[in-house]
Amino acid sequence: MTNIVKVKKIGVVSRCDHVDALEMVKTILKRFGSKVDIAIAPMTAQALGIEGDSVLPVNKMRENGVELLISVGGDGTVLRNISKMDDPIPILAINMGTLGFLVDVNPEDAIKTIENVLSGFKYGERARLAVSLNGEALQSAVNEVVIITAKPAKILTYKISVDECELGELRADGVVFATPTGSTAYAMSAGGPIIDPRVDAALIVPLAPFKLSSRPWVVPLNSTIKVELTNPEKEAVIVIDGQHTYTIVEHDIIKLTKAEHPARFVRTTISGFYKKVQSKLA
Amino acid sequence: MTNIVKVKKIGVVSRCDHVDALEMVKTILKRFGSKVDIAIAPMTAQALGIEGDSVLPVNKMRENGVELLISVGGDGTVLRNISKMDDPIPILAINMGTLGFLVDVNPEDAIKTIENVLSGFKYGERARLAVSLNGEALQSAVNEVVIITAKPAKILTYKISVDECELGELRADGVVFATPTGSTAYAMSAGGPIIDPRVDAALIVPLAPFKLSSRPWVVPLNSTIKVELTNPEKEAVIVIDGQHTYTIVEHDIIKLTKAEHPARFVRTTISGFYKKVQSKLA
Amino acid sequence: MTNIVKVKKIGVVSRCDHVDALEMVKTILKRFGSKVDIAIAPMTAQALGIEGDSVLPVNKMRENGVELLISVGGDGTVLRNISKMDDPIPILAINMGTLGFLVDVNPEDAIKTIENVLSGFKYGERARLAVSLNGEALQSAVNEVVIITAKPAKILTYKISVDECELGELRADGVVFATPTGSTAYAMSAGGPIIDPRVDAALIVPLAPFKLSSRPWVVPLNSTIKVELTNPEKEAVIVIDGQHTYTIVEHDIIKLTKAEHPARFVRTTISGFYKKVQSKLA
Amino acid sequence: MTNIVKVKKIGVVSRCDHVDALEMVKTILKRFGSKVDIAIAPMTAQALGIEGDSVLPVNKMRENGVELLISVGGDGTVLRNISKMDDPIPILAINMGTLGFLVDVNPEDAIKTIENVLSGFKYGERARLAVSLNGEALQSAVNEVVIITAKPAKILTYKISVDECELGELRADGVVFATPTGSTAYAMSAGGPIIDPRVDAALIVPLAPFKLSSRPWVVPLNSTIKVELTNPEKEAVIVIDGQHTYTIVEHDIIKLTKAEHPARFVRTTISGFYKKVQSKLA
Repeated sequence: MTNIVKVKKIGVVSRCDHVDALEMVKTILKRFGSKVDIAIAPMTAQALGIEGDSVLPVNKMRENGVELLISVGGDGTVLRNISKMDDPIPILAINMGTLGFLVDVNPEDAIKTIENVLSGFKYGERARLAVSLNGEALQSAVNEVVIITAKPAKILTYKISVDECELGELRADGVVFATPTGSTAYAMSAGGPIIDPRVDAALIVPLAPFKLSSRPWVVPLNSTIKVELTNPEKEAVIVIDGQHTYTIVEHDIIKLTKAEHPARFVRTTISGFYKKVQSKLA
Repeated sequence: MTNIVKVKKIGVVSRCDHVDALEMVKTILKRFGSKVDIAIAPMTAQALGIEGDSVLPVNKMRENGVELLISVGGDGTVLRNISKMDDPIPILAINMGTLGFLVDVNPEDAIKTIENVLSGFKYGERARLAVSLNGEALQSAVNEVVIITAKPAKILTYKISVDECELGELRADGVVFATPTGSTAYAMSAGGPIIDPRVDAALIVPLAPFKLSSRPWVVPLNSTIKVELTNPEKEAVIVIDGQHTYTIVEHDIIKLTKAEHPARFVRTTISGFYKKVQSKLA
Repeated sequence: MTNIVKVKKIGVVSRCDHVDALEMVKTILKRFGSKVDIAIAPMTAQALGIEGDSVLPVNKMRENGVELLISVGGDGTVLRNISKMDDPIPILAINMGTLGFLVDVNPEDAIKTIENVLSGFKYGERARLAVSLNGEALQSAVNEVVIITAKPAKILTYKISVDECELGELRADGVVFATPTGSTAYAMSAGGPIIDPRVDAALIVPLAPFKLSSRPWVVPLNSTIKVELTNPEKEAVIVIDGQHTYTIVEHDIIKLTKAEHPARFVRTTISGFYKKVQSKLA
Repeated sequence: MTNIVKVKKIGVVSRCDHVDALEMVKTILKRFGSKVDIAIAPMTAQALGIEGDSVLPVNKMRENGVELLISVGGDGTVLRNISKMDDPIPILAINMGTLGFLVDVNPEDAIKTIENVLSGFKYGERARLAVSLNGEALQSAVNEVVIITAKPAKILTYKISVDECELGELRADGVVFATPTGSTAYAMSAGGPIIDPRVDAALIVPLAPFKLSSRPWVVPLNSTIKVELTNPEKEAVIVIDGQHTYTIVEHDIIKLTKAEHPARFVRTTISGFYKKVQSKLA
């Protein structure tokens, strides 16, 4: 947990296809516009008809002094915007839809929560997975990287190694590589364990593996995981946090390791993680 | 087990992209052409440069007196050709690739086995799943019908009922509906149980279900299973036996029940099924 | 579903360590004693201080004309009393504790339900598993037969065959053999599928198997399942419906097959089964 | 990996009910007795008819200058002897039975391997779980601590917390708490993931949980895991590494955390771990 004393400049970003989210942004601007500098993400600004100096892309916010990013929407809004930042600003997520694992604050508590946060806040860090495809960096993942057959229900063959140790050849629809944060998202549907975010590990879960003995693996997050698709003439896709998709073919090399900079969330605690898991499992 | 005494007419079909398979067909024609009538499937005939009266589509073979279909290839060849027949002729499958669950005879034993079979054979029956989409019949499945998101790793919502009893709403990548024969194929990768082919049941297995309590179901094969995709603006696909694919959208209705006519296999025994499972699980 | 028109004689049995259950029996006797003949099970009679001709062991009730047995308690009370009957009388179960899968009627609805049932009722049948140990018959199981190491967490080796087909040697803590009715009880905790009670099948589920590829099996209920413990100098126990326990040693032979007579339950419907599963999985 | 240059004193311990193991000890004594000091564990000495100063309990070996313990037997021999040491001496395990995860050296390579090791060796560390029952320390576990119902197949209720965060009440036969080393032993049979030994985590796996949504958890190894049995009038047992058993009753408190001193193994590498898992899963 790191402490920030007094906030001078914040950023705001929201879903743009959601009236209530945009209304919430307006309320925030009216209520706090005179107290702190507010930068607005371009798409959000456009949806509200705002122009001028306050419009600032999310990936430029840190270098322009933004200390806190308010995300108005759901888990998707949070994931999309963190992926734009190499060194993410702490995020406070206002939940405008179904409750997610990454959004904390209900709309009715939003204004009061922001008011409190502006006078000082603590944030927690959540490790991310850095991903490269044939040596070129893709977006880092807060939740997971899925590599999966492009043709539904067609099994593929993957060669996976961890720090040069082979896990063996995997025949499966696909594989999920998750952070501890992502262990409660798609990796859980695929049958993976729940991982406490304090554990510095990456989770590897096969999707519909042909070999019945295939198991989830938990490996050091700072190890290098290497994946190669070994089927000739077949296509797979990489899906990062359910937001970004890339097509891969035979002999493409995907590498995953711990990202240099974590995601940062205001008010995220370990006991909060345990409570959310309990309510999901109930 | 049903008994056939003396075979007068056989059909032959093979993979057409596989030199050894086509060579095997030539050998069969040379060796047995003078002893029995032989009908040849059109694509196989074309690949061999054969024309004339002996060329006969697989779906016309029964009405033209063919009593036995020799399939040369792998599980895919068998599945593709059974799906063409409303009331399938007994199949003897010569294995030209990796050993499958539906192919029995190795190439080196092929000629001797066919010789024995021609003087009389028994066959076993394997129930199939009849499938309809909005009331229109699709191919029947020997192994399974998979309904799965068209966009990899995007969860969908399915409403499933069995004889009007609701299983509840399922949020998942997809669902596998398998025959007992198919319980050792894709349904097994998805986590389903093994079902003895003598059990008159259909198997329902969710793929990467969101709800952790989702379980495989085993229901009467002659019940009516009804599936509806309930997400607006999303697409899923139906994949039958890994061979036939259809796209579906919101409110499309898929119905599954026991097909009127089973698949029929020469020399298929229950102890053979148990042995194949043992070798797969080893 | 079988139909009974007008009930002339009923039996009553209850938990004897439960004041409310005994009170319920008194109410039943007072309310219906003048309308039908009522036989009372010995332990229940003793707990209530009743003596005389109306006292009748549960296993003598059928031959003495009892057409319906009212069980007051929980699933355990039902299971214990069915196991006493070779050819079980239809049971109406009044639930006095936590809701179970076999108890249907809440205390507040008990009197009205019994009144309705006495003027005629339908009952459903639920197949049971007959069990023998070295040729001697044990109790038949409504839910399941568990064979499990007598020493917690000590793995044993089991040889299992179905109609002489070997499933292979199983190294595990134990094995669950369940009816479809029992598929929602202990077998479900062990990872088995849910089986619709209309499917005529037995379910075999390994408990903590050493071999990761070990899977649940669904086999014909009228097949003969044979189990042998193959470890020298080790002990296991057989537990039938969680009620009856027997110790076994190396080379003891357990056989399971469909029992001649099923359990019979008043008001049990397939849609009721699906609803109970839904509420359990919720 | 830590380096030891030249070994001056070793200890030897073996299975005492195994002729070949005792023969191997004799060979070691004859071959190396003149080159290094050798301490012999009391039971092993007795089985060989050896008396005198060289006889030394395993738990006294470190303070008497023993730098390396040679264990002759299987995984059980290794586990039993490590559990005697608060601060374990590095172990070299000669395998006299079926290959285990903790035994490395085959009998035919034993002498040559020991010869090499005596001139200097590296060892790896494997974290252990410290266990206490109502505040009193029990043996530390190299593989796992199992808490399980004392009465086979009788479900119990457990309250589990991690650093005061509740995992929720668990209804199950039992729970496995494993180290990464133990993730390939009993925890794997119970359905847990494989954990790379470099990950500093403990694994919690329920055994036959009543609630279908119960999942394996991976938590920080240095967190405090607290377990309480909450059923009145029921008994459970604690089994440590399959070797040590304790009975517990309602309200007994078991605490688990990272042990101060790890187990130490000669020649244990991460790539060796991956290879052993591959051969187990094959």
